[in-house]
Amino acid sequence: MKGNFVEKITNMEDDFAKWYTDVVTKAELVDYSSVRGSMIIRPYGFAIWENIKNELDNRIKETGHENVYMPLFIPESLLQKEKDHIEGFAPEVAWVTHGGEEELTERLCVRPTSEVLFGEHYKDIIHSYRDLPKLYNQWANVVRWEKTTRPFLRTLEFLWQEGHTCHETEEDADKETVQMLRVYADICEQILAIPVIKGKKTEKEKFAGARYTYTIESLMHDGKALQSGTSHHLGDHFAKAFGIQFTDRNGTQSYVQQTSWGFTTRIIGAMIMVHGDDRGLVVPPRIAPTQVMIIPIAQHKEGVLDFTYELKKQLQTSFRTGLDASDKKPGWKFNEYEMKGIPVRLEVGPKDIEQKQVVLVRRDTGEKLAVPLDGLEQTIANLLHNIQENLLTKATEHREANTHIARDFDTFKKQANEQKTGFIKAMWCGDRVCEDFIKEETGATSRCMPFEQEKISDKCVCCDKEADALVYWAKAY
Amino acid sequence: MKGNFVEKITNMEDDFAKWYTDVVTKAELVDYSSVRGSMIIRPYGFAIWENIKNELDNRIKETGHENVYMPLFIPESLLQKEKDHIEGFAPEVAWVTHGGEEELTERLCVRPTSEVLFGEHYKDIIHSYRDLPKLYNQWANVVRWEKTTRPFLRTLEFLWQEGHTCHETEEDADKETVQMLRVYADICEQILAIPVIKGKKTEKEKFAGARYTYTIESLMHDGKALQSGTSHHLGDHFAKAFGIQFTDRNGTQSYVQQTSWGFTTRIIGAMIMVHGDDRGLVVPPRIAPTQVMIIPIAQHKEGVLDFTYELKKQLQTSFRTGLDASDKKPGWKFNEYEMKGIPVRLEVGPKDIEQKQVVLVRRDTGEKLAVPLDGLEQTIANLLHNIQENLLTKATEHREANTHIARDFDTFKKQANEQKTGFIKAMWCGDRVCEDFIKEETGATSRCMPFEQEKISDKCVCCDKEADALVYWAKAY
Repeated sequence: MKGNFVEKITNMEDDFAKWYTDVVTKAELVDYSSVRGSMIIRPYGFAIWENIKNELDNRIKETGHENVYMPLFIPESLLQKEKDHIEGFAPEVAWVTHGGEEELTERLCVRPTSEVLFGEHYKDIIHSYRDLPKLYNQWANVVRWEKTTRPFLRTLEFLWQEGHTCHETEEDADKETVQMLRVYADICEQILAIPVIKGKKTEKEKFAGARYTYTIESLMHDGKALQSGTSHHLGDHFAKAFGIQFTDRNGTQSYVQQTSWGFTTRIIGAMIMVHGDDRGLVVPPRIAPTQVMIIPIAQHKEGVLDFTYELKKQLQTSFRTGLDASDKKPGWKFNEYEMKGIPVRLEVGPKDIEQKQVVLVRRDTGEKLAVPLDGLEQTIANLLHNIQENLLTKATEHREANTHIARDFDTFKKQANEQKTGFIKAMWCGDRVCEDFIKEETGATSRCMPFEQEKISDKCVCCDKEADALVYWAKAY
Repeated sequence: MKGNFVEKITNMEDDFAKWYTDVVTKAELVDYSSVRGSMIIRPYGFAIWENIKNELDNRIKETGHENVYMPLFIPESLLQKEKDHIEGFAPEVAWVTHGGEEELTERLCVRPTSEVLFGEHYKDIIHSYRDLPKLYNQWANVVRWEKTTRPFLRTLEFLWQEGHTCHETEEDADKETVQMLRVYADICEQILAIPVIKGKKTEKEKFAGARYTYTIESLMHDGKALQSGTSHHLGDHFAKAFGIQFTDRNGTQSYVQQTSWGFTTRIIGAMIMVHGDDRGLVVPPRIAPTQVMIIPIAQHKEGVLDFTYELKKQLQTSFRTGLDASDKKPGWKFNEYEMKGIPVRLEVGPKDIEQKQVVLVRRDTGEKLAVPLDGLEQTIANLLHNIQENLLTKATEHREANTHIARDFDTFKKQANEQKTGFIKAMWCGDRVCEDFIKEETGATSRCMPFEQEKISDKCVCCDKEADALVYWAKAY
């Protein structure tokens, strides 16, 4: 029933988790199925993903990468080749044991990520420094056997891209790792209006099999953090496990230096939790499947529908434009498209037509503007631009207001116990023992050591020993 | 080693299967992996798929369909809901029995196709005739546990799109089924330059769970047929199994009428086997990742490289243009890009620059043309257009020359025994017994009952009983 849209959703401040579930289902982003922990991505949700994907795919290609497709299945023996990797992933993979009626002689896992498949392939196709760099990417589904799941944020299966590259030197690989992190940050900030902190993961939190991991971290409305994209320097760990050697410029055999990096459907969860409000979803204009929704007012009156059809035709050459000419009441339509977070609603009735104007309503602020038909494209273009900017500004302000400094453990603990924890900036000695202790005592985990380091104290917030780095801590999704 | 490109590949007429394997690997479309029966789709192969996918996705959207994404896994109990469907697919699905360390209480199959997942979802979201039609599509990977596999043609895992739609009436569903078959035929003929026969499958060959199946069939260079796309009218089979009911225009509860239709990476195999020759791949211009490859001649001479860089910049606004300025010899480059089937090679050396001309070489005919720089874009545009047309004409002529008529079983059997069987047009009584007998005796299977029926005889070619329909028969991939 379309009538669902006028039911009130749970208030964010009352129960954020419930609010989230209400939004993803009532805005028709996803539906549940009988497959535990998996989601059906419905047309509106998938159209958002397609827009994100196109933006990212363009940037991946512009930076010289080529798309490929690797098999879904990984033989158990292949997954075992890199020790840290198998240890990290074995507990969370799905195993295929039968094909048709026959039992397999070797189990196949459903890829949780594809380092080992790329490793095996790179061994075959890389021989000389002339073959480097190799810059591959794939768009794929992956499976991780999660116990508790939530749409977009943590699902048994998710969609992503995974980049896998090979380089001559450690420095080249590091440059690539940083470059792709910046691409992810750019997608988040410029396209999704989500500000991110760029930094390095601790040893504990790095990718299984990596030398080190870079990450972008964002802050949700409820003060919890979300890892929004990671980029790994793999060093020669996989190269040694798979024998990916090349004749270098000096004629000697060297192992390649590798990277991998991934960005997933999870980011839609971030978009919801950063921009959404009590009326539902708020979709940034640059990825909105519909940027402008036209709602005729008093559409039974002569000329109104014809006018809106013409207007749609005119506007859709510049904007992704919708028109709802159904017989539902305008108020119901308003609620529906507010729930779906469409950036601009355009209302037009007989009086507007007479006065050669339309009414534009911003989803982000609720502001209503009567504007002349003359120059309408430019007006809408400016408005969409303003909305996009406003969303980023508001999200940045929210993050700043919820970023705290802790110079001692009491302050840290107190902040972690607040209902809205936010980011806690605190110094750390670099010792895993302190990292584990902080998590145990406060529930906050290390999110990253930001690229932009500050020295807010000389001592580790936990043990008082000499501080090694500033760390962003938070409770996280 | 790039040097591989000058090694001669197997001659088509000597060993077509070996020729095919040589082409797919040496043109760098695919590589093998340690995953039995699966393929790595390499950058060149994947770029071709992306171009096909974009063309098809545009048409799917233009005809009003929306993309969604369904789970990869199907619980065994869900797959069993439609009897014919489970019987058809059970022998060829992969089963997941373990997640992490734990054994599952119910096995999950890796989707071989997604009718049952769509069925379950449609039951939840369709209530009234106002909700119809529902026109969904998904791009996905699917798995079928094939015993013998060949790149693109038959692989354990393949990529495809699968459309799934719901309608109010049988007629609406039939219109949809025909419409999507025509879209597939259009992609084959207009984009891939592969002529197809449109028709209906026999009961024996229809999709497991369908009322009937429409198909497009194409003929390969070796005289074998390839099913190139299918579109199924599902009737209310799945609707009844899943309880997909709606309140119709008369206020009564009715079951929806459904369709499903799929188009796969297999079509790349068809493209190879229809257009390829003894020098390798021939890629139709409309899907060629590189349409024009510039090869500098005597590139060490002053001005040549600069000229080609400029030329590339100029041409790439109109065409997908490559430039090979590596230090390999031009002859090696010619071989490489002939192997890869790039439609037009553009050679330019010091003399050409002086004479304000370039040399264009067509991949399809080998014809060389010295053409003036003046008006080059138009010349190339015309040439690409001619190549595209020529490929379709040649393929159509080949098919016509290899389409035979059999009015009696001896003639049928003799033709089926020819090295190049081709299509055999023969009348059929409609009885499964004859269809099975023909296959057993001749190796030919019924490909389709073409939409354009002819009456070439009154009697079934097998049993002499009254003929029911003209059938295209062939040995098939």
